[in-house]
Amino acid sequence: MAKQYTVAVVGATGAVGTKMMEQLAKRKFPIGKLKLLASKRSAGNKLDFAGQTYTIEEATPEAFDGVDIALFSAGGSVSLTLAPEAAKRGAVVIDNTSAFRMDPNVPLVVPEVNREDLKAHKGIIANPNCSTIQMVVAMEPIREAFGLENVIVSTYQAVSGSGIHAIEELQAQSLAWDEGKNVSATILPVKGDKKHFPIARNVLPQIDVFTDNGFTYEEMKMINETKKIMHAPALPVAATCVRVPVVSGHSESLFIEVSQSGVTVEELREVLRNAPGVIVQDDIKNQQYPMPLFAEGHDETFVGRIRKDLSNDRGFHLWVVADNLLKGAALNSIQIAEAMVADEIL
Amino acid sequence: MAKQYTVAVVGATGAVGTKMMEQLAKRKFPIGKLKLLASKRSAGNKLDFAGQTYTIEEATPEAFDGVDIALFSAGGSVSLTLAPEAAKRGAVVIDNTSAFRMDPNVPLVVPEVNREDLKAHKGIIANPNCSTIQMVVAMEPIREAFGLENVIVSTYQAVSGSGIHAIEELQAQSLAWDEGKNVSATILPVKGDKKHFPIARNVLPQIDVFTDNGFTYEEMKMINETKKIMHAPALPVAATCVRVPVVSGHSESLFIEVSQSGVTVEELREVLRNAPGVIVQDDIKNQQYPMPLFAEGHDETFVGRIRKDLSNDRGFHLWVVADNLLKGAALNSIQIAEAMVADEIL
Repeated sequence: MAKQYTVAVVGATGAVGTKMMEQLAKRKFPIGKLKLLASKRSAGNKLDFAGQTYTIEEATPEAFDGVDIALFSAGGSVSLTLAPEAAKRGAVVIDNTSAFRMDPNVPLVVPEVNREDLKAHKGIIANPNCSTIQMVVAMEPIREAFGLENVIVSTYQAVSGSGIHAIEELQAQSLAWDEGKNVSATILPVKGDKKHFPIARNVLPQIDVFTDNGFTYEEMKMINETKKIMHAPALPVAATCVRVPVVSGHSESLFIEVSQSGVTVEELREVLRNAPGVIVQDDIKNQQYPMPLFAEGHDETFVGRIRKDLSNDRGFHLWVVADNLLKGAALNSIQIAEAMVADEIL
Repeated sequence: MAKQYTVAVVGATGAVGTKMMEQLAKRKFPIGKLKLLASKRSAGNKLDFAGQTYTIEEATPEAFDGVDIALFSAGGSVSLTLAPEAAKRGAVVIDNTSAFRMDPNVPLVVPEVNREDLKAHKGIIANPNCSTIQMVVAMEPIREAFGLENVIVSTYQAVSGSGIHAIEELQAQSLAWDEGKNVSATILPVKGDKKHFPIARNVLPQIDVFTDNGFTYEEMKMINETKKIMHAPALPVAATCVRVPVVSGHSESLFIEVSQSGVTVEELREVLRNAPGVIVQDDIKNQQYPMPLFAEGHDETFVGRIRKDLSNDRGFHLWVVADNLLKGAALNSIQIAEAMVADEIL
């Protein structure tokens, strides 16, 4: 009988945690024992999973005794406190928050791109930001085939990236619009920030708070994480991150410059057709292109609108869409665990 | 007493036509006589304007006899047929469709940018595409101050750009979502195209139909019109045009490269602060940045999120928002007429 693992899920009731549980069940991850951990406040609550009822336990350092894999998705501060405790007790932490992503001792992994980095782990592995993951899945096969020298991305990000309360806010605002009532905002663009603006019938050019250089943290995540995952510290990457009134599915308008001259759209398309985790949807004659509404629930990253720049022979434009809660978060975390099992690192 | 003009509005009942009438009244354009023209089907209908009731007349060639200014906004085929007839009868046509925009004999004008081109008119003047207008309003002062060498834009365009039926479609789909009913689509992305997709809770990476090079007509309009308006045929311009579930207000994520090295964000901001038709909303400490919901009903183009690229000293990122039915269409048309009156070309 194949080895089975004791898995802990920290933050099981959140938007990403729920999807992590679904993915563990759907992908038949070899779970021996499952522990659901949360704050003291949620401890004692019951949660159903794969036909069984689990009682949520308080996430204390000792709760990780005997745990093989700990999936964290309960906010950066929880990870900062408890992930080292879990690792100290022998668990491999796969952390979905931004807490450890840029730590040089922590591999930041998208299995299709830098699976080999998992081998260097010291107990904590970071899952990249949602908008970063789908972009590097689309870019890595292109980089391998033709080289990559420049990246400029503008995003169209769904509210589910801000959690369940942001989804509820969009729904409440949408209903208020329909009923001609006043629209109020208390969550977006950033729960803890000073001002809040409606997302229904609006777009918000702020995701996460601002850094001193004028870019938001979300934009800096895309810039810095891409360089780390692709092992390309000198790669120019620029990002503008924008929230749109979509429930699930991030879209990205991506401009890249490849190193080789004379690459054709069909060559680039062919590389993407053969790339792991990518589905090419690019038949404009039949109006086939990726859209977030139709990416929901799918594991793959969808790429379309592939076209060559009209002024720059090495420039290409792509439109990249993925389910931000799946490949952008929960699925990638489980895929990291699967890769570690398959590569016998766990 | 100042000269008064006989003004004809062709397509007065449409989304843009309605705004044109509002602008004529609001801006007190010196109208002597107003004629509302439409298809045979609408002829005879009544329309109120500035406290008077007008009877819509059929738009025949003869209807333009005695007209000084004819504002066209009834679709490209109507303009192609009737604009030359109106011009032949001595009217100056200001055409809001794409029919004549790239005609070398037709000035394509945004008054803040190339007002002097009006002097060369031969009876027809074209109003640029909505998404082009706000972009050149933001870029021209930067080009004048620092030079401009590269433009890459991704748009977030409102449904009102597709007319009243597209607004109704978004509202109907939104209501269906709220009520848990099936969502149907018959208008967007393009009324006459083969397939239709929901815009509520979705984004559509197609505006207008596709051209052979993989870009849509909307994207090619932004590319070609920008070069024509700015008198910069060799300027590299790339565009990705995307429809978002917003009623009014187009947003644009704009990357530009200026010619001069060492330009600071504050220098660029200062140039925009002094630019005609521009309002700088760029105070990230107070979460101040342009948003389409708050641009609605305003005449100006709002610019924010101004930041220097982290890898390219000559690269800047900007976020540009304007009311697509006002500066993007109706207002710019009336501003063209006003400029011609002021410059004594009319």
